[in-house]
Parts: sequence; C-alpha cells; structure tokens
Amino acid sequence: MTCPSYTIHSRNCHCGWNNAFPPAHTAEPGQTLTFECKDASGGYYTADSTSADVGGQDPATINPVTGPIIVDGAKPGDVLKITLESFAPSGFGWTAIIPGFGLLADQFQDARLHLWNYERDLTVPAMFGNHARVPLKPFTGTIGVAPAEPGTHSVIPPRRVGGNMDIRDLSAGSVLYLPVEVEGALLSIGDTHAAQGDGEVCGTAIESAMSVTVKIDLIKDQPLRFPRFETAGPVTRHIDCAGYDVTTGIGPDLMTACRDAVSGMIDLLGRSRKMSAEDAYMLCSVCGDLRISEIVDAPNWVVSFYVPRAVFA
Amino acid sequence: MTCPSYTIHSRNCHCGWNNAFPPAHTAEPGQTLTFECKDASGGYYTADSTSADVGGQDPATINPVTGPIIVDGAKPGDVLKITLESFAPSGFGWTAIIPGFGLLADQFQDARLHLWNYERDLTVPAMFGNHARVPLKPFTGTIGVAPAEPGTHSVIPPRRVGGNMDIRDLSAGSVLYLPVEVEGALLSIGDTHAAQGDGEVCGTAIESAMSVTVKIDLIKDQPLRFPRFETAGPVTRHIDCAGYDVTTGIGPDLMTACRDAVSGMIDLLGRSRKMSAEDAYMLCSVCGDLRISEIVDAPNWVVSFYVPRAVFA
Repeated sequence: MTCPSYTIHSRNCHCGWNNAFPPAHTAEPGQTLTFECKDASGGYYTADSTSADVGGQDPATINPVTGPIIVDGAKPGDVLKITLESFAPSGFGWTAIIPGFGLLADQFQDARLHLWNYERDLTVPAMFGNHARVPLKPFTGTIGVAPAEPGTHSVIPPRRVGGNMDIRDLSAGSVLYLPVEVEGALLSIGDTHAAQGDGEVCGTAIESAMSVTVKIDLIKDQPLRFPRFETAGPVTRHIDCAGYDVTTGIGPDLMTACRDAVSGMIDLLGRSRKMSAEDAYMLCSVCGDLRISEIVDAPNWVVSFYVPRAVFA
Repeated sequence: MTCPSYTIHSRNCHCGWNNAFPPAHTAEPGQTLTFECKDASGGYYTADSTSADVGGQDPATINPVTGPIIVDGAKPGDVLKITLESFAPSGFGWTAIIPGFGLLADQFQDARLHLWNYERDLTVPAMFGNHARVPLKPFTGTIGVAPAEPGTHSVIPPRRVGGNMDIRDLSAGSVLYLPVEVEGALLSIGDTHAAQGDGEVCGTAIESAMSVTVKIDLIKDQPLRFPRFETAGPVTRHIDCAGYDVTTGIGPDLMTACRDAVSGMIDLLGRSRKMSAEDAYMLCSVCGDLRISEIVDAPNWVVSFYVPRAVFA
C-alpha cells in the first residue's frame, strides 16, 4: 500500500451520472487517492431515525457519489484499473425495507429501518438485535466512470461502466477493471457498505459512510465489455466457518426462482429462528448469498440462497 | 456415520421419473444405505472415448438414477431428510460440450470430450491437460423423489421434488430435505460429479460413477415448497485459497447477464491463460461459480462469474 496523496472530500459529490459534471480533481495514473464517501442516504438517516423516516428522503439526494476524478490520459477504449487498498468505516450504519424497492417489494409493503453501531476496527460482528451477529467486510456499493451518453442518468441501475454494482467482493485487496467511455474516465465512488450478501435482496445492505483509499492505474487500448475484478485471497472466510442453511427455487424463470429461494429462507428463518418476516428479509440482504446452482438443465434452473450459520453462533 | 445396512446396485436404475416404476428396496426411516451410481452417460464414455463419440449415445439411456427406494411410512406432505454421509468415487470421469446443450450452446456447436483420471482418495487435484488443476469435491448431481403426476417425466429438468438439481454443495456432510409427493417417497440417486462450479455452465461437470452412502429420515407433516439443505462447515475452502478472477454481466435480463459473464470469462482465459474457448468453457463448468451480485437496482441486475485462481497455481 502507498500513502494516499490526496483526499476527495465528500462535499464533492453528485447524484446521478453525467459526463458534463465538473471534476473534483485530476489524478495521474499510479496515484493513490482517498475518497470520503457518504452513505446511500447522504446522511439522511441518523442515530435518531425510525421506520417512520423511511420514504421521507428527497429522491434527488439518494446515493450520492464522491467525485468525479479525471484520470489524466484516459480515453475511450482504455481500461481503468482501481486497486481497493483500504476502508475506514464510520461505525454507524442502517438497513431499510423501502416500499416499492427490493426483490420481494410486492410482499413487503411496510417501511422498516434497522440502525447498526459497529466497531470501526471491524473485529467484532455487528449485532442485529438479539437475532444475529453479522461479520463485517466493507466494500464500495457504487464505483464507476461516466457513461458516454450525454445527459444525467439515474445512479440506481449499474451499467457496463460500473456504478451501483453492489458486488460484495469489491472489498480491500480487490482490483477492479472498468471500461472507459469518455476522456478522463471521470471516476466516482460512494454507497459504501459494511456488509452485504450476494443479491442485496431487500434492496439495502449495512449502508455506512466510510473513506476508501484506492490506487488508480490506466491500461491503454484493452477491450472490456463489462467490469471485471480480481481478488488475491478467499472471499467468504469471514462468514463460512459454521456452514450454511440453503433454500432453493426451481423453475424456468431465473427471477421467479430467485424470489422463491429468498421467500423460502424467510419462511425457514421464521420457523427455525423465530424471526419476523421483515427482520429475516433484512438479515438475508446483509449476509445471504444468491447463487445459480444450475442453468443448463432445460427448462428448469436452480437458484440457491445461502445464509451463513455463523451469524447465529 | 453409521455402517450402511444395504447396497442398491446400479443394475437397479431407471431413466426418467415415474411413480409407477417398481421399487428396488424398502427402507426404514433411520436406515443407512449405499447407492451405486452410474455416471450420467450410464457408462457410455470409457477411457477410449473421443470427441467423435459425443452425441452418439441413445438419448433414452442418458442420466440413469439408482432406485427407486420406498421409504416406509412416507406420505405426501412429509419431508424426506437425506444425510449425505460419504462418497466412493471411481477415479474416472468425463466432461463434454454436447451440441445443443449448455448455457452458450449457440456459440459452441462442435462436440468436445475431456477425460479425467483422478486419485480416488481425492487428495490430489485432477489435471485438466496442462492448463489447470481442479480440486475435487464429489456430490450427487441428481437426487430426488417421484413426482405425483402420473407418467414418465424427463430426468433432465429438476423439479420441486428434486432430481437433476446439480447443486455442487450436495456433498459429504450436507443434509438435504425433499418434499414427498407420493406414498413411499420413491428416492433415487445418480449423476454423481467429482467437481462442478455453480451453474454447470457448459452442461456437464466432472461426470463420474461413484457409490454414495446416505442416511434416510422422515419428517412428518412439514410444509416444504422446494428442496432445501444444510451444511455444517465451509463449502469453498477446497478452491478459495488463491482468490478469484471475476467477470460480470450487467443488464435487465438475468439469463443474458449470466451469458455475458461467462462469455467474458472465456475471453479472459483465452487472453490471460492462452486457453482455447472450448477448454475455457469446460473449465468454467467444472470450477467456476455463477453468483447474483445484485438483483434490486432496477432495471439492471449484476451477475458475476468467479473462477478460482487455485486451479492455475
């Protein structure tokens, strides 16, 4: 790790993507930078917030990202290489069921907010009430470069240039490769999460402000259709020691199979752990993994949803 | 582990599911049984087979399963609990690209066969030519009970009663729960695999005959919509030590995103490891994992395909 040479403060943030947004800084390839990132609510939720506050936020202020940063010399067709060096988390986070949002939005129509306080050194799992202890592994929920298409584009959907990908293994030590579509690349980072499972099924993770230190490199003229990344070591050791409870969904539509697998887990956690459906849904989102077990035995696919038993230990 | 009290020999096998097939044995709940399982070709592929043999098998003989076994007292609405105690693999296996079958069937129209010889004690990864060393973890590709619907049903698609689920963690130590739809349950097991990634993307795993010892228990009157399972320990330690290369697919259709992620990995393995597309596709199938990173940031979902770097170490 190299010492960061510059910090992009979180007052330099924007909502949505637009390649005409003014840059906050110009970085040289090889430079290490720290991005101060707000949480996905931009600080709307505080220690005093309750479920009654969910839905009250101005939609235009959701999911601010810090940046954009010009990478000197980056041109369309290049690849931006971003080494995620370290995370400095805030210790405060939130998870919400937001009406109209999430994999099972039709079944969960009431707002719900859970607040988390966790040790900033990440050595202790975060308590989810009396139900569970969730091991933490911070990552960048949103990391991307500006799309070529003019105008302002919603920050919610991820794109081939990255953005709100919510890939839980974009954590310290991972190296992300993003296709550059505009001069200077225009990199922004935000929506930091303290923990999340594959899928982010309820729509939110442990949403938490933190600073992220990254090293930026440029690879010239390399074709890349979608983002890719590398990790040098195991990715699930923080949660895998006690095994998993797994539910499945089986059928010809992957989305329906995903919904069936997660619904099955919510039912199971209700029966076996006496959790309310809302608590189970939020817990699934912060630690459960949605995996495709088979996608070839036509016409039926198998989706499996894995919840680590370590959270109940 | 208890000593198996009975062995169901592989001559007691059937192709397709039919609740009128004659039972091979009647087991008591609590009993431990060994199922001798043929590979998915029923022994069609041998050490002398080549790519020219792919496609020559009589379709009616594909994917035989050993059984069925009556579980005494099992009735519709019950749940069959199957503890996968141990696997005795044969040491010979095959992986094929079968024209018309697999996630990228449109892109891979030529037959290809790879034969594997591996140590039966599983202590040594299996060699994939000079390209890769694949750690082994045997499991039951097909395990299921008879469907209530009369008639013979193809063995290829999995169903709510299980069958050809190809879930790579149905390995030694896992406990599977299946919904019972007919009197006696009628359990059959086959299609054993020595290794496979989540997705089984080329359509075949390391297909390999082996004997499987299971303990059978019955849970009365428990609702279960789809199969579920439990594992007591980590599931990916055999492959996770060196991290992963990961490609993504991003867009509004999960199937397309899956195809993009796997295509991206095949391209990457071609560039970075000098593998042919066919070899890369088969390697992806036996060790790469298809995961859903996010399924909530409408309208675009992120699918990630993870290949463990340990196979190249």
